[in-house]
Amino acid sequence: MNNKAVILLSGGLDSSTTLYGALAQGYDCFCLIFDYGQKHKKEILRAGAIARKAGCRHVCVKISLPWKGSALLDKKISVPQNRPLSSQGIPVTYVPGRNIIFLSFAASYAEAIGAGKIFIGANAIDYSGYPDCRPEFIRSYQAMLARGLKSSTQGKPIEVVTPLIRLSKAQIVQLAFKLKVPLSLTWSCYNGRFKPCGVCDSCRLRAQGFAQAKMKDPAV
Amino acid sequence: MNNKAVILLSGGLDSSTTLYGALAQGYDCFCLIFDYGQKHKKEILRAGAIARKAGCRHVCVKISLPWKGSALLDKKISVPQNRPLSSQGIPVTYVPGRNIIFLSFAASYAEAIGAGKIFIGANAIDYSGYPDCRPEFIRSYQAMLARGLKSSTQGKPIEVVTPLIRLSKAQIVQLAFKLKVPLSLTWSCYNGRFKPCGVCDSCRLRAQGFAQAKMKDPAV
Repeated sequence: MNNKAVILLSGGLDSSTTLYGALAQGYDCFCLIFDYGQKHKKEILRAGAIARKAGCRHVCVKISLPWKGSALLDKKISVPQNRPLSSQGIPVTYVPGRNIIFLSFAASYAEAIGAGKIFIGANAIDYSGYPDCRPEFIRSYQAMLARGLKSSTQGKPIEVVTPLIRLSKAQIVQLAFKLKVPLSLTWSCYNGRFKPCGVCDSCRLRAQGFAQAKMKDPAV
Repeated sequence: MNNKAVILLSGGLDSSTTLYGALAQGYDCFCLIFDYGQKHKKEILRAGAIARKAGCRHVCVKISLPWKGSALLDKKISVPQNRPLSSQGIPVTYVPGRNIIFLSFAASYAEAIGAGKIFIGANAIDYSGYPDCRPEFIRSYQAMLARGLKSSTQGKPIEVVTPLIRLSKAQIVQLAFKLKVPLSLTWSCYNGRFKPCGVCDSCRLRAQGFAQAKMKDPAV
């Protein structure tokens, strides 16, 4: 059995920590980056830089979604500023089926290279309420892969690993420092300006995590 | 409740019959076509022509799979000729995770436009043994969507409909004639020459279906 793993890498805090965690466990990591029509390319560039820094192979898959319906894709929909993080409901930054699509490419890639694991930095504690980040979704995704992939029918099922899913953002920050993640390269902001905006959900969840962990964010 | 449906349309016999069946049932059909790096563009052109003939909206999503590993994508792997159709095992034309990827885009599209159903012409009787065409795969895919999509969490689950899954190829041919599918426009061949090759699995399954249905194939 080889130790190849596909890592979904967005260039943010969570996916970068996931990558460094997998490397620390001895996995031979193949990073998968998506250019899916985000309003800005900053996170794609940072993801590539982080993969290179980690010495990992990486591929970028370009996807066009001709439909929009998300503030992360559609220039006509603004990214909310200073939204209460305790809000109920799913915000307009939700991209329909994003993790379903990302994991489908990861499964194809894993099967093509013979990797037994897919790592995804999904988190269901300090998050924006996206349904495709929850443990019950991940479990059902893996069950589906066990029926749809050739490798699964040959007794080599592909496992979806979510090392961060039950961690608070503060615990992820602490783990990132422990794993020596190049935090200054990571980019979590939904906007693609020179500096992180500080007011989108993603910036504020990150800031809250660093504050609770009593650490300074080297990327801000 | 609207009657919008997303139809996965490849331009072959099965997906075209699925489209015409959904139209006959009164669905407002949105066709989804993929340019996923097939060796030839013939099926993409035919899919567009069939959608236009049916008077349906259609979008084509372009996907690059940087990994290969299938005779349908990789010019170095030949499409098998005259392979016994009763062969056990999954042939080299299998594309890792193809229907998993296609359905993930369909789910995103359906959610973006508010469609309640996705139609796919998967068939598990006269088929090439691909694991992602079997009923147990489709059921698990739908269960996964029920956990990963915003619409599902809001009490509007998206259903994956497989009208052909238990039909023989002869029954699909009979249904296609009944529904007045423009069969001369359909393209099933894995090769993209002027005429269907007649020796790939797809051509031979189709020819067997027409022969058993005692009908002449207008596309040959």
